[in-house]
Amino acid sequence: MSRSHAERAALALLLEVAGTPKPGNVDRHRDHDGLRFEHFLAGAVGASEGLRAAAAGEPVGSAFETAVAGMGEQEGGNTQFGCLLLLVPLVRAASRDRLTRDGVREVCEATTVADAAGFYRAFEHVDVALADPPEGMDALDARRGSDAIPALEARELSLYDVMERSDGDGNAAEWTSGFPRTFREAERIRADDGPVPDRASRAFVRLLAEQEDGFVRDTAGPEAAREATRRAQACLRGAEDPERLADEFVERGINPGTTADLTCAALYVALERGMAV
Amino acid sequence: MSRSHAERAALALLLEVAGTPKPGNVDRHRDHDGLRFEHFLAGAVGASEGLRAAAAGEPVGSAFETAVAGMGEQEGGNTQFGCLLLLVPLVRAASRDRLTRDGVREVCEATTVADAAGFYRAFEHVDVALADPPEGMDALDARRGSDAIPALEARELSLYDVMERSDGDGNAAEWTSGFPRTFREAERIRADDGPVPDRASRAFVRLLAEQEDGFVRDTAGPEAAREATRRAQACLRGAEDPERLADEFVERGINPGTTADLTCAALYVALERGMAV
Repeated sequence: MSRSHAERAALALLLEVAGTPKPGNVDRHRDHDGLRFEHFLAGAVGASEGLRAAAAGEPVGSAFETAVAGMGEQEGGNTQFGCLLLLVPLVRAASRDRLTRDGVREVCEATTVADAAGFYRAFEHVDVALADPPEGMDALDARRGSDAIPALEARELSLYDVMERSDGDGNAAEWTSGFPRTFREAERIRADDGPVPDRASRAFVRLLAEQEDGFVRDTAGPEAAREATRRAQACLRGAEDPERLADEFVERGINPGTTADLTCAALYVALERGMAV
Repeated sequence: MSRSHAERAALALLLEVAGTPKPGNVDRHRDHDGLRFEHFLAGAVGASEGLRAAAAGEPVGSAFETAVAGMGEQEGGNTQFGCLLLLVPLVRAASRDRLTRDGVREVCEATTVADAAGFYRAFEHVDVALADPPEGMDALDARRGSDAIPALEARELSLYDVMERSDGDGNAAEWTSGFPRTFREAERIRADDGPVPDRASRAFVRLLAEQEDGFVRDTAGPEAAREATRRAQACLRGAEDPERLADEFVERGINPGTTADLTCAALYVALERGMAV
């Protein structure tokens, strides 16, 4: 009896939040006010049905909506929306025995207007922090939820098309380019050693050092996003202690959520490729 | 969309291990050598299929075996065998809308020889620490796994009968008496307040103070079991710091596993009765 694709995805959600320190995130040792570790545990359990649907071949948009609706069944608010946005196409690709950059690219490119509608409906299940939409995209502001569906249909936009129009969002960039950061980081995690949550922590710091976090930019501003990346680089050089940085960023509300999403996706790919827990 | 019975049971497994301090156990802040937090996360994910089988009406012994086989799919060894032994009949009772002492008693009393066989087969999926069997029960030593099945069949013993013959095991005592400690502790957890993992920690200390732990008795001896209960009582009186006791017990290998099982079962009942996370 080996783990199913959906079980690996649920485990990736749990390993991600268990990794510590992940500067600015909820982790095994840190909570935010009102958003605590146990909300992530409940989010992972709740997402499982949607992850199983993705593995069983249900359309990406509908599986994602189911996963988000289940994830949202806890008191903390949005815990893993971005993680699920990455996991669902990856699980779909894995269930087709095509968990490669090309395989997940095919899944994403094959999405339809109905998938885009599922994505928009997902925003009705949980309150997601979002920046203003790009120029000319007001009618497609994700905060409109299913009210945006007529505009999607009029413009015949697939979920892939929506992601292409999501300027500057790190998860959307993965979606439209075959998940380059996810697959690269998965290999680094596999090449690392020690307990998996420790590897998750190191992966998070590497990813943050490599690229500014879109969620920090949207919620705490561009200067905070630049600082977070600069200081993650200092952690990599050994010039800064990631434990202390984690305490400081939690205190200041600098929460690199997109980097956590990528860490989770990379953990999933590493589990699929044989990383033991 | 609300949580299913199986999801509540998986969440109870996760909340149990997240509770800290739980003197002597793996918890959010403590690992054992070779048995770490992430193994419990993977165990909870792996058990989910068997928990869904229990909720769907599959026989108790077979659902338990499936849950244990999935739980055992991680590198730490036995993480949640005892928890699952309590959860499976509770989930079965909940799925029949009878999650009461009488309801779970009916589930346990209705078990068959085939359920007992499933229980014995479960021991082949994971290495469970066990004491020597009671007098006259050598042929039914659980360490024999499925080799004990002919003896079960010859004596026509149901799983309930096997539990009745398990002298001094705290989980077996719950099984044969309508889960009195589980239901009582569930009400205390519901009456408590604050984050649920904190309530899990307090429940654990109360349960340990109330009764000696069978797993400690089997693995560290009767004096250690007496000491663990005496010192949990001191924690309740405020005469001892549970955080320091947790560090000491982990160091000394005093691991009140049966008390953790009961804590998990009580968390499950509390979730079923409306405790929010």
